[in-house]
Amino acid sequence: MQREREGGLRGVFTAVLTPLDEHLDPDHEAFVRHCLRLLDAGCHGVSVFGTTGEGNSFSVAEREEALEALVEGGVPGERLLPGTGSCSLTDAVRLCEKAIEVGAGGVLVLPPFYYKDAGDEGLFRFFAELVERVGDERLRVYLYHIPQVSGVGLSLELMRRLHEAYPQTIVGTKDSEGRWERIERTCRELDGFEVFAGSEEFLLRTLRAGGVGCISASANLNSRLARRVYDLHEAGEDAEGAQRDLDALRKAMEGYPTIPALKALLHRATGEEGWTRLRPPLLPLGEREERELASGVPVEELL
Amino acid sequence: MQREREGGLRGVFTAVLTPLDEHLDPDHEAFVRHCLRLLDAGCHGVSVFGTTGEGNSFSVAEREEALEALVEGGVPGERLLPGTGSCSLTDAVRLCEKAIEVGAGGVLVLPPFYYKDAGDEGLFRFFAELVERVGDERLRVYLYHIPQVSGVGLSLELMRRLHEAYPQTIVGTKDSEGRWERIERTCRELDGFEVFAGSEEFLLRTLRAGGVGCISASANLNSRLARRVYDLHEAGEDAEGAQRDLDALRKAMEGYPTIPALKALLHRATGEEGWTRLRPPLLPLGEREERELASGVPVEELL
Repeated sequence: MQREREGGLRGVFTAVLTPLDEHLDPDHEAFVRHCLRLLDAGCHGVSVFGTTGEGNSFSVAEREEALEALVEGGVPGERLLPGTGSCSLTDAVRLCEKAIEVGAGGVLVLPPFYYKDAGDEGLFRFFAELVERVGDERLRVYLYHIPQVSGVGLSLELMRRLHEAYPQTIVGTKDSEGRWERIERTCRELDGFEVFAGSEEFLLRTLRAGGVGCISASANLNSRLARRVYDLHEAGEDAEGAQRDLDALRKAMEGYPTIPALKALLHRATGEEGWTRLRPPLLPLGEREERELASGVPVEELL
Repeated sequence: MQREREGGLRGVFTAVLTPLDEHLDPDHEAFVRHCLRLLDAGCHGVSVFGTTGEGNSFSVAEREEALEALVEGGVPGERLLPGTGSCSLTDAVRLCEKAIEVGAGGVLVLPPFYYKDAGDEGLFRFFAELVERVGDERLRVYLYHIPQVSGVGLSLELMRRLHEAYPQTIVGTKDSEGRWERIERTCRELDGFEVFAGSEEFLLRTLRAGGVGCISASANLNSRLARRVYDLHEAGEDAEGAQRDLDALRKAMEGYPTIPALKALLHRATGEEGWTRLRPPLLPLGEREERELASGVPVEELL
């Protein structure tokens, strides 16, 4: 059993998709609306500008402006867990500072992902410089491990070292590698470290192993089902059936690229044009693919 | 034999290292001095902010300010080939616009490198949007292929399609994959496309195959030797011996990480502190490593 940090983040977070306007810029109004809907549907928090949110496809200024718009639009700052990573140390610093300014509950930070062989020492220096440069005791960093996309993994040894060096600041991780063994081992071996699974498929197992929850792309659609798993587990009740219900959407999307598929389903569910657009290099599903995918998913029931 | 575009770039280009001040920011004065020294030593041009130049480790503003400083410091704009790629379309647009503003002879553009499975269609859309958004007939794009670092390669089919769609704008490539077969095939199959080898080790072979030259990290030190290969080849003389002389530095650096090793050697050669620093996640060589490496390289003779 892990000891938990007071005020640490916990629960069901959505890795929020970013709706775009016709210029392929973030549509702030639709973004606010979607985040509020997710919180209303039971999400404990919203993680914007991660991989699902196409975070790295936007400029720093675009990410900053959207964070401001979300808070001005009524999204409580403390329920935000924005992606603030960058290959550039100075950009990562700036994004973290903005997150603190809007009152974010934490920040999700990728390792610098251009150079693939920097090694643990180079990555340690990057995160250490980041923490020192931000120099704000309100900073709460969750290390974002998604090596199959970023190309740069975070070893348990590195995470332990960072947590020991900055115990009040580098407080947790989102593990999106998709290997349950690693999530389980991180929960077991990194005492006091807050572990989010990077997918709702591991939600129940993560909670049982002492982790704090999940940050899920599918939760853009099925956050109510995810919250139900969480609540049943917290109440000490059987959550296996609820977890199976939660897993259905992921299974229905198998074989489709995740981000375009989720946007297509939200388009179906809401009729909003903002969900038909992605920033290149990502592309929307074709019309036929969207229709085929949607035929297997009861989107209206999910939202 | 390839037909050549009038005014196309050609010759020996250095993939320029970026000297840093004590805050790990680009040291403009030292940067200007280094670029002028390279041009003076025979380089036809300087390619700043590529992989060797730690381009992605700097913010857009930092890259823009440095470009301005280089031109103000006397580096002729038309001899600049800056890296202007980014995962963010809008950042890539901004960097290309700045490059045009300072009169750069061309821009070296990475594919967006966060998502690894975007596919040719998504990459095509990215570059097409980039060209359309910049919307300036002065834009000259060289596609930067370095999959072992970026994680995203550019197929010959994609490069052909881009060149056919924008024949006056997407005009060439830098191939840093390190496979001669691919460079040779690109020279042979993409008629009119300007092919730079990403390493001086292929300089002579590339010129013989109809390519336009090389963009070389080692040339931070041995540009005079590289220029000699080029001049002998152009004069129709035997350049094999000169190419062997040129290859010696690369061989001496084997087993050392390229960017820290080159900075360490420049530190030895010039005594300038700016070469002892890298932005994390890259790290300088240790003192002992620097001494060991330097003992095998006659740096004073090279510069």
